[in-house]
Amino acid sequence: MPDRLDPSTYRRLVREALAEDVGPGDVTTAAVVPADARMSGAIVANMPCVIAGLDVAREVFATVDPAIEFLDWRSDGSLCHPGERVATVTGPAAGILTAERTALNILQHLSGIATRAREFVEAAGGGIKILDTRKTIPGLRALAKYAVVCGGGLNHRVGLYDGILIKDNHIAVAGGVTEALRRVRATGSLLPVEVEADTLDDVDAAVAAGADIVMLDNMDDETVRAAIERIGGRARVELSGGMTLERVRRLADSGADYVSIGAITHSAPAVDISLDIIIDHRSPADG
Amino acid sequence: MPDRLDPSTYRRLVREALAEDVGPGDVTTAAVVPADARMSGAIVANMPCVIAGLDVAREVFATVDPAIEFLDWRSDGSLCHPGERVATVTGPAAGILTAERTALNILQHLSGIATRAREFVEAAGGGIKILDTRKTIPGLRALAKYAVVCGGGLNHRVGLYDGILIKDNHIAVAGGVTEALRRVRATGSLLPVEVEADTLDDVDAAVAAGADIVMLDNMDDETVRAAIERIGGRARVELSGGMTLERVRRLADSGADYVSIGAITHSAPAVDISLDIIIDHRSPADG
Amino acid sequence: MPDRLDPSTYRRLVREALAEDVGPGDVTTAAVVPADARMSGAIVANMPCVIAGLDVAREVFATVDPAIEFLDWRSDGSLCHPGERVATVTGPAAGILTAERTALNILQHLSGIATRAREFVEAAGGGIKILDTRKTIPGLRALAKYAVVCGGGLNHRVGLYDGILIKDNHIAVAGGVTEALRRVRATGSLLPVEVEADTLDDVDAAVAAGADIVMLDNMDDETVRAAIERIGGRARVELSGGMTLERVRRLADSGADYVSIGAITHSAPAVDISLDIIIDHRSPADG
Amino acid sequence: MPDRLDPSTYRRLVREALAEDVGPGDVTTAAVVPADARMSGAIVANMPCVIAGLDVAREVFATVDPAIEFLDWRSDGSLCHPGERVATVTGPAAGILTAERTALNILQHLSGIATRAREFVEAAGGGIKILDTRKTIPGLRALAKYAVVCGGGLNHRVGLYDGILIKDNHIAVAGGVTEALRRVRATGSLLPVEVEADTLDDVDAAVAAGADIVMLDNMDDETVRAAIERIGGRARVELSGGMTLERVRRLADSGADYVSIGAITHSAPAVDISLDIIIDHRSPADG
Amino acid sequence: MPDRLDPSTYRRLVREALAEDVGPGDVTTAAVVPADARMSGAIVANMPCVIAGLDVAREVFATVDPAIEFLDWRSDGSLCHPGERVATVTGPAAGILTAERTALNILQHLSGIATRAREFVEAAGGGIKILDTRKTIPGLRALAKYAVVCGGGLNHRVGLYDGILIKDNHIAVAGGVTEALRRVRATGSLLPVEVEADTLDDVDAAVAAGADIVMLDNMDDETVRAAIERIGGRARVELSGGMTLERVRRLADSGADYVSIGAITHSAPAVDISLDIIIDHRSPADG
Amino acid sequence: MPDRLDPSTYRRLVREALAEDVGPGDVTTAAVVPADARMSGAIVANMPCVIAGLDVAREVFATVDPAIEFLDWRSDGSLCHPGERVATVTGPAAGILTAERTALNILQHLSGIATRAREFVEAAGGGIKILDTRKTIPGLRALAKYAVVCGGGLNHRVGLYDGILIKDNHIAVAGGVTEALRRVRATGSLLPVEVEADTLDDVDAAVAAGADIVMLDNMDDETVRAAIERIGGRARVELSGGMTLERVRRLADSGADYVSIGAITHSAPAVDISLDIIIDHRSPADG
Repeated sequence: MPDRLDPSTYRRLVREALAEDVGPGDVTTAAVVPADARMSGAIVANMPCVIAGLDVAREVFATVDPAIEFLDWRSDGSLCHPGERVATVTGPAAGILTAERTALNILQHLSGIATRAREFVEAAGGGIKILDTRKTIPGLRALAKYAVVCGGGLNHRVGLYDGILIKDNHIAVAGGVTEALRRVRATGSLLPVEVEADTLDDVDAAVAAGADIVMLDNMDDETVRAAIERIGGRARVELSGGMTLERVRRLADSGADYVSIGAITHSAPAVDISLDIIIDHRSPADG
Repeated sequence: MPDRLDPSTYRRLVREALAEDVGPGDVTTAAVVPADARMSGAIVANMPCVIAGLDVAREVFATVDPAIEFLDWRSDGSLCHPGERVATVTGPAAGILTAERTALNILQHLSGIATRAREFVEAAGGGIKILDTRKTIPGLRALAKYAVVCGGGLNHRVGLYDGILIKDNHIAVAGGVTEALRRVRATGSLLPVEVEADTLDDVDAAVAAGADIVMLDNMDDETVRAAIERIGGRARVELSGGMTLERVRRLADSGADYVSIGAITHSAPAVDISLDIIIDHRSPADG
Repeated sequence: MPDRLDPSTYRRLVREALAEDVGPGDVTTAAVVPADARMSGAIVANMPCVIAGLDVAREVFATVDPAIEFLDWRSDGSLCHPGERVATVTGPAAGILTAERTALNILQHLSGIATRAREFVEAAGGGIKILDTRKTIPGLRALAKYAVVCGGGLNHRVGLYDGILIKDNHIAVAGGVTEALRRVRATGSLLPVEVEADTLDDVDAAVAAGADIVMLDNMDDETVRAAIERIGGRARVELSGGMTLERVRRLADSGADYVSIGAITHSAPAVDISLDIIIDHRSPADG
Repeated sequence: MPDRLDPSTYRRLVREALAEDVGPGDVTTAAVVPADARMSGAIVANMPCVIAGLDVAREVFATVDPAIEFLDWRSDGSLCHPGERVATVTGPAAGILTAERTALNILQHLSGIATRAREFVEAAGGGIKILDTRKTIPGLRALAKYAVVCGGGLNHRVGLYDGILIKDNHIAVAGGVTEALRRVRATGSLLPVEVEADTLDDVDAAVAAGADIVMLDNMDDETVRAAIERIGGRARVELSGGMTLERVRRLADSGADYVSIGAITHSAPAVDISLDIIIDHRSPADG
Repeated sequence: MPDRLDPSTYRRLVREALAEDVGPGDVTTAAVVPADARMSGAIVANMPCVIAGLDVAREVFATVDPAIEFLDWRSDGSLCHPGERVATVTGPAAGILTAERTALNILQHLSGIATRAREFVEAAGGGIKILDTRKTIPGLRALAKYAVVCGGGLNHRVGLYDGILIKDNHIAVAGGVTEALRRVRATGSLLPVEVEADTLDDVDAAVAAGADIVMLDNMDDETVRAAIERIGGRARVELSGGMTLERVRRLADSGADYVSIGAITHSAPAVDISLDIIIDHRSPADG
Repeated sequence: MPDRLDPSTYRRLVREALAEDVGPGDVTTAAVVPADARMSGAIVANMPCVIAGLDVAREVFATVDPAIEFLDWRSDGSLCHPGERVATVTGPAAGILTAERTALNILQHLSGIATRAREFVEAAGGGIKILDTRKTIPGLRALAKYAVVCGGGLNHRVGLYDGILIKDNHIAVAGGVTEALRRVRATGSLLPVEVEADTLDDVDAAVAAGADIVMLDNMDDETVRAAIERIGGRARVELSGGMTLERVRRLADSGADYVSIGAITHSAPAVDISLDIIIDHRSPADG
């Protein structure tokens, strides 16, 4: 199970998301809902999914009105079946209705990522670890990476600063793998060094130059297996490029350590989650 | 074609997206790429798509290094075929490589939305207008709505503040459509009023109460057609709920004015777009 | 009575207002007032007025010191007579004295707007609705519009984004009312469309082109009445331009729906409101 | 003439003012004005006034579109007569129309303050200096104080941090003028010390305790003259409280050094300034 | 003893300091420390020092996890001996360990300034007051000035806005002390005026022109004494430039009012303060 | 030589530093320096030092007035001798004088760190690498680490997110080195793992558990040498705790890979750097 999300990760996003949705005010709710009306609502998963982002949803409601009580029935990372109650909210009806869409938008998106990650983790069957990439939707990096962990995946580097990954363009500019790795070593950096390899020659060069991890990019199955044999345990191996569930299943026994999949974060469809009214505590004055 | 995007819409997002990716620094590029190395790269669409977000991508490169020249070969809203050059970037190699992923992440996502919108617009064949919803990924509302326009769709209200939409939960709290609409009219608001209807009775009540637009939510085809007949032009009609390309095609001649589709913004898969190196202006000192 | 103000509307303004007044510190209070001194103060209206902004004033005191208790005796929108207590504050004397001016500055200004709005509402005598405009003091749009509602007025569009108003300059650029309206309709926007008319010909053109609201700008009384007759209920009517109390009284029975008045927000004189010390809970140590 | 305004004083305000007015977009202009249409407009004073805030207005246009050229015909602090051109703007019509209201709102307000300050300065006829107070509209302190200088006034302390002013409430908490001043001196502060005096006894106490400036608050003319005689040059003298133009004229020869007037900043009516279209460079394509 | 620090002074710094240290997450603590583990730690001074910044340290822990209880055993401004407990923290172990370094970094730095200030105050022996300067480390001005007060020093102006100090470069640009002072007086500013003097002639000119304070800059002891004699009480005297403890002792009886020392804030070595674990409330589940 | 500093690293700091120093305005310069006066000034090192932060100083001047031309004569990382010109600034005198102190404060501090780092690098004589720590002054992490590189040192992890360092408190909470390392490995993190060791037993445990780096903390010389022998190349070795120049010299041949020194960043005295006027381009009008 993932560690609890640090609130500093999402506080600004929640404020911005509310700002862009509520702007100068929710005119419908202001007109229709009496200030003292109360309600309860159930947040319900309408399809099988791995839930992620409950604390963010709680923050959305709390930001709109601290008097709204948010009770989670499930926790991030749990598998939910269709129709299952994920959480309930109780309190001032106006605040709940104003916050609803923003809270659901976040939950639907993060649960979508967690669900997609889980599908890949199950396809891998334990034989290979599922990594995310830096291909995340702008502004959501930390949350997207958290959702991947909720789905059972691991996080590759968070950004350009916490890992060294020498890619094809770096190699082209440096004039070769060996020179690129030499330059990296010369900085004295304590970080691990990964090198992208597109051919078996690249693989040999990367291993010879002392790469800690070799990323086999867009190779067919056969070449992948040949590359892993050549590496022979001298470096960890990551597979990358166009990975589908089926291919992950096929390569689960290849001896590779990791497979990284951009689609988990950049193309995960939203999970259908809704807020269903359960009780309408209408105020007496409104009766 | 859409209006040009107002830069104030994306400047903060670009800074945040770079902050989350680059953080304290791109350690790989700092180590491998000489400060005076220059390069050119082509931004290429690897699948058929409608492009959206070129100005945002340009801003990403300019924010990292104002010396990078960004030249667009296509404009937002154009249909691109696989392998087509969308733009080129020329300048300091370090900046280009540091900015690459953030620029592509934005382009891929917005072009994904534009492409999905276009598919729906084509399915509708002019017989019905395609609207987006408020189901957008948090922090990206303005850009997502812009991408919808790039794909030929129209924007429904931007947020809770620029349109009145009385939904099921509002009606439940108010105690009926008639009372909810009465409250809205009492505020003197100048905004148009839309009412969600789940049954034909709801439709009658909404029209009787003077709704400007009626949203037929999750009705089957037959009920949709019956509802439109009853409304008889006294209000505009929006279809909503689980709309697929096929269903849009089927209902294109129904007489409805709009169909709104959340999936365009919340579940659009990213378009595959890459940055390919074209020339390596290696600095003499690096030779 | 107005809805409660959403705190997100004023939190930043309160922080900025305190930052500009207190800056690195209130040197007088720091020197003169012992840290443990306590006091009570009454916020008193020194002239007849409609009060507005009590929650903002409360936030000012709470931001300076959460230990200050703010008790409102009146609520926003109530009519106060000279010498009436509007609220009391009790707590640490240092915080109260540091916050005093900022809290009063806001209350005085917003109550000034509410009072001015009320004067116009009374002049109209129910025969015509009083609207504000976008002529607000920069940075205070949301609060100014809220104060107008406290005074019994209605809000015109909040900004350029939640209503379409085709003004003289737009018409000039488009080459005529008809063409301007045609372009607006072509966008498929769901927002209502208002058109500025300076002459009776403009009025005819606007109505013919299907304007939802016609704004009669700077017309004399006679022309106003002629225009309203020509419109004959086919569009709502807003009067605008140099409206005084007297003129509003005169046109109250004209059949116009609205009159909009910039001076309510851009030229409302501040109401005289002060903080009077009521008890000095001097700390024993200070005896 | 005032020093040039430091841009850091208004950059944030301009962005906020535009954000609150334009929000997600100027829908009218986007619909009506072609992207390539150009125009020129004249900013014209419609009543006699002292202009203030031209650089802020320029910044508004530049923020909306850097391609708009802003040419000032007058400078801040100059006296303008009705119908006089203050500045011209030339460039993309869309940007000019979007920025218009925000630019005018600022100019009208600041010029209102400058004009009011000037009236008081003229009433004083050089015999007494006109000071502003901390009674400014929240968020506009620096600009309001600048506008006062444009009108020929002087700035009292900017906030609570750059001057010591012992007011009635401080004296009450400290238990007397003498004790309050003793505490201030004990801090070793290098700032000048002003003391509020409501009676002649207060005046004596303040002078005896070594006040640098004595503020005669809400005294009638006779008491003012008596107080100034008693002070006899041992401290500078500031008059405060309900000052009108007439009263300033009457007390101009009283020997007081300063008179401070809150109404200059908190109740200055806006000056009527408008943007008049002068040429419509309609794009050929639009013809 | 100093006044309590206004939290607005350090809230942003605390958030920034945590952001730069914790970034996207404390990976070590996340991996090693169970979410339900609790601990207590003692913050201990490892050398004689004057403590400063306890409230800032408390804020660091509270920002990371509001459940951490921070109990101060000493208060800002107290003299601590080696090994003395300054405060204790109790609560979730993960939060305490994540916050530790940031809290200590601030405490060590501010206590270093307070300790250095105290050494100078003791050297002066009451005969001369110790002032800080504007030579502070960027971003820490308010906190550094607070720490100086904790050490018994006084604050010179906080910035360029709350005091007038005519330095050599201003005099050069103006063409002489007399002209510079004349220009300052012409602004009508209420602030005290200090003039830098490098020679006895400068001293004479400054006093003749009416300076409130004369700063004797980089003069030897003999010249200092001669200057003070010439000034003869007509202005306050500040000594500046390369002041050491020894020199302050020597000039303590010179009759100067102040000595200002940049090194107190720009070169104070950090005090060695550590967080020692005292109890490990290991969670049962972790046993 | 270090890479160029990314401007995003210091833009906010520069704005904040100017805000805290200039606040609402530089009253002295505004009064004394004519708006059209120009000047040139030389930034001069007054003691031997390694310069660092030139781009930050340039940004300070450019932020105050883009018309100021900043020309660097030396580059970051160069050794300067007393009296040497580091840079010159030319342009509007007012802006230069307003920016001076903020620019110098940053330069003095960063050059102090670079100079201190260089002293340790020279003491190590190439036999051991000098690392910084996380003991930096709050808000300056990125700049401090850059300055260390200017002095020839290497950067240890930037924060808690880009390296795993299991310290004594983590080990205590986890119940031993072996268990702590097991938990870290279980996360699948790609980052290198360093373990703090206080005794030879700790060293054995850390190596046995597979630490990538062992930090020998506060050991005497003899124990250091014994530990390195036991490790025998199976892990890299970092020395830490109370390191002086002399001790670094003594241990330079010990076989350790790194020595980390907090004092480089938390206690580096500022270098004396000043701005000397070189030409006073007095404006003719001022003559």
